[in-house]
Amino acid sequence: MNLLAVELRKDVLEANRDLVDRGLVMGTFGNVSGVDRDAGLFVIKASGVPYEALTPAHMVPVSLETGEPLETDFRPSSDTPTHWELYRSFDGCGGVAHTHSASATTLAQARLPVRCLGTTHADHFRGDVPVTREMTREEVDGAYELNTGVVIVETFHEGGISPEEVSAVLVANHGPFTWGKNAAKAVEHSAVLEFLARLECMILAVAPDVPRPADYLIDRHFLRKHGSKAYYGQG
Amino acid sequence: MNLLAVELRKDVLEANRDLVDRGLVMGTFGNVSGVDRDAGLFVIKASGVPYEALTPAHMVPVSLETGEPLETDFRPSSDTPTHWELYRSFDGCGGVAHTHSASATTLAQARLPVRCLGTTHADHFRGDVPVTREMTREEVDGAYELNTGVVIVETFHEGGISPEEVSAVLVANHGPFTWGKNAAKAVEHSAVLEFLARLECMILAVAPDVPRPADYLIDRHFLRKHGSKAYYGQG
Amino acid sequence: MNLLAVELRKDVLEANRDLVDRGLVMGTFGNVSGVDRDAGLFVIKASGVPYEALTPAHMVPVSLETGEPLETDFRPSSDTPTHWELYRSFDGCGGVAHTHSASATTLAQARLPVRCLGTTHADHFRGDVPVTREMTREEVDGAYELNTGVVIVETFHEGGISPEEVSAVLVANHGPFTWGKNAAKAVEHSAVLEFLARLECMILAVAPDVPRPADYLIDRHFLRKHGSKAYYGQG
Amino acid sequence: MNLLAVELRKDVLEANRDLVDRGLVMGTFGNVSGVDRDAGLFVIKASGVPYEALTPAHMVPVSLETGEPLETDFRPSSDTPTHWELYRSFDGCGGVAHTHSASATTLAQARLPVRCLGTTHADHFRGDVPVTREMTREEVDGAYELNTGVVIVETFHEGGISPEEVSAVLVANHGPFTWGKNAAKAVEHSAVLEFLARLECMILAVAPDVPRPADYLIDRHFLRKHGSKAYYGQG
Repeated sequence: MNLLAVELRKDVLEANRDLVDRGLVMGTFGNVSGVDRDAGLFVIKASGVPYEALTPAHMVPVSLETGEPLETDFRPSSDTPTHWELYRSFDGCGGVAHTHSASATTLAQARLPVRCLGTTHADHFRGDVPVTREMTREEVDGAYELNTGVVIVETFHEGGISPEEVSAVLVANHGPFTWGKNAAKAVEHSAVLEFLARLECMILAVAPDVPRPADYLIDRHFLRKHGSKAYYGQG
Repeated sequence: MNLLAVELRKDVLEANRDLVDRGLVMGTFGNVSGVDRDAGLFVIKASGVPYEALTPAHMVPVSLETGEPLETDFRPSSDTPTHWELYRSFDGCGGVAHTHSASATTLAQARLPVRCLGTTHADHFRGDVPVTREMTREEVDGAYELNTGVVIVETFHEGGISPEEVSAVLVANHGPFTWGKNAAKAVEHSAVLEFLARLECMILAVAPDVPRPADYLIDRHFLRKHGSKAYYGQG
Repeated sequence: MNLLAVELRKDVLEANRDLVDRGLVMGTFGNVSGVDRDAGLFVIKASGVPYEALTPAHMVPVSLETGEPLETDFRPSSDTPTHWELYRSFDGCGGVAHTHSASATTLAQARLPVRCLGTTHADHFRGDVPVTREMTREEVDGAYELNTGVVIVETFHEGGISPEEVSAVLVANHGPFTWGKNAAKAVEHSAVLEFLARLECMILAVAPDVPRPADYLIDRHFLRKHGSKAYYGQG
Repeated sequence: MNLLAVELRKDVLEANRDLVDRGLVMGTFGNVSGVDRDAGLFVIKASGVPYEALTPAHMVPVSLETGEPLETDFRPSSDTPTHWELYRSFDGCGGVAHTHSASATTLAQARLPVRCLGTTHADHFRGDVPVTREMTREEVDGAYELNTGVVIVETFHEGGISPEEVSAVLVANHGPFTWGKNAAKAVEHSAVLEFLARLECMILAVAPDVPRPADYLIDRHFLRKHGSKAYYGQG
């Protein structure tokens, strides 16, 4: 194992632990990965290992070219092919996180998007977080986890959504995937998405037909934090 | 007391404490038991003892044949006959847990099942978690706690539901019972059930008429974690 | 100060702290009192003192005969006359607690009772927890806090409700009061009431027209924990 | 930097940390400021700095006359012009807090006020907490953060609402701002507002058309805690 992957493993382990600390997973659910595109690999949590038992050794390196594990000590997360597909299709994607967090999963089960209804949302995602279509029997009976990734990518391509501007998705009847420039950012987006999904669930309960905010408000908030004209933070 | 039961008592005590740590009980509510079929007994929490005061001595051994306590130091949980009935009727059942956790109890009071609406559910239970019918005056005025077990078993038999595939039930106007291969697994299922019930309550509030996921998706998720073709975890 | 009241102060202080530990109050909201009927007094939390600063000296003794403080170091809770009225009217009442806990206050503001929809409720309260009528301008502009107690007592008398069997009430547009055989029990009832109110809020959101459970089920559960035929606990 | 501002910085830092401890912010969201009108300045949290890294040096002094930072080590919060506008327009305002707390933000996104439905509300705010109108494209594309303050002030002036009696507002599709006699009180009002917004969300879900309480009840509660006839606390 080269040294770069050792650092990456530490980062990805840290990000997996962060997922637990933020209350986004229950039991052994959920997984985070991070990529090193120059090294041609990503590392991802081993399958079904309790979070408190995780060490860097449980962060399994996977080839970016073949999607196959580069080590055989531990079996990688069963969701590995989904992560792989996202790394292959979304250029700027440096880390991926998957949770079954309560509110985001509720909306995924209701097959409803997380609508962009305010500045909290627009500070992070420029527009609705979409929900995928249902998967077909062929997709589920075949390479299910890979096809989950394929359907996510299709959702962005067909919807004309930029995965850089909206770095999250709800997979229908399943749950959320998020991504970012690295594993830590992917987890942060999972936390933000769960918060926004919680607001969306509350709004659907109290005022489902609320009008949307104006586009110029969304753009103002997204662009004050992202891109060349950002003026949030210490820059 | 034989040694085996001593180990069992420790496991059951640990499982009872786990019930509290997971936030599934309030006050002295709730109880967990575990069975040793070879020794012909199960052990269950004593009735009404505060959780922080529990010791292995408060785990009361009960005859699997007669349903009567094998020791007289402490009175077993008043729900003991319900546990007994489940051990007698469900062959693979090694542990039973009963809580009044908030969302599962809400659905029990609403006499609504926990519908299987996604993969989080299907990872654990293959289909809806059913709710029992109302109990009759005769059942309640008679051997109430035993009859609670009888009605649970009837729900599974008449509904054609496998207690191995769906290891949880809501007792109408009462609350959830769960089971598993041992006491620890029964508690884990209580935690999962409460999470799923929480999602179901949210969905009922925001999108009650959501379509169900396809059976092939449910089967795929249940079978990737259970049975001979499972490929989740370190195998 | 006599010794008995010193012990009572410690108990009431402990009960006030318990109110905070159970997450039932925010800021300086809420108050607990306990009575010593033989000594002719009750003690109650001083008004507006932060919970973390409370000492036994902040538990102000009040005459059961006149409702006036017996010491002048600290002003008693502004809700003191409400407590006094409950001690005068409800014979078995040994302690009173008042909170603004979230779900119970929501129902109080919605002027809805906490319906008895299941065994969790029936284990503690034999029937609905009632909500008072609105108070008149004369009642509010006059001896407001005393009249709050008067309206509570009226609710039980006119509704034919036993304050021993239902030891809790929601004051319309205000919040819950609970009582019990001592201050600790009053607080426990506040915690149970909040839990039941939370279930009621959830049920109103997901299945408002759910049928009520049979009376025989309610009676069975209440009587297995209360009265001469109780068989719950170590007896 | 003069000594007074050093004390103010410590107070404002403390208030910012309090915002986190009370669970009102996520990530680097939210900001608190405090004013020293004699010194002609207010201090506010630096933009985008993680809460755990904050020191008094990150509390940036800003001129009350020009709205411009008096030091250049750190960029002040991007919401600084909103705070400035509130200090300029609301005479009694000594501290301002801004959060994206869940329930208050939900109502802001639903463009619904926090109705005054009970005594918990009336103890703090004399009447509904209003929601602003939508901002125009010109207001958003121009001096957005300053205009946010202008729209808040307009909401109070046009609605005939006293900012001393109702020290909180929801900005449409954005979130809550609160104020008080100092930074600590502003944060306390943020916590109270979030609690009241949580009740309002629950009531909208379970009984949206509940009648309002009588004005005399609201006044009684507000005035027993505020003004010359207050009789709550140790006086």
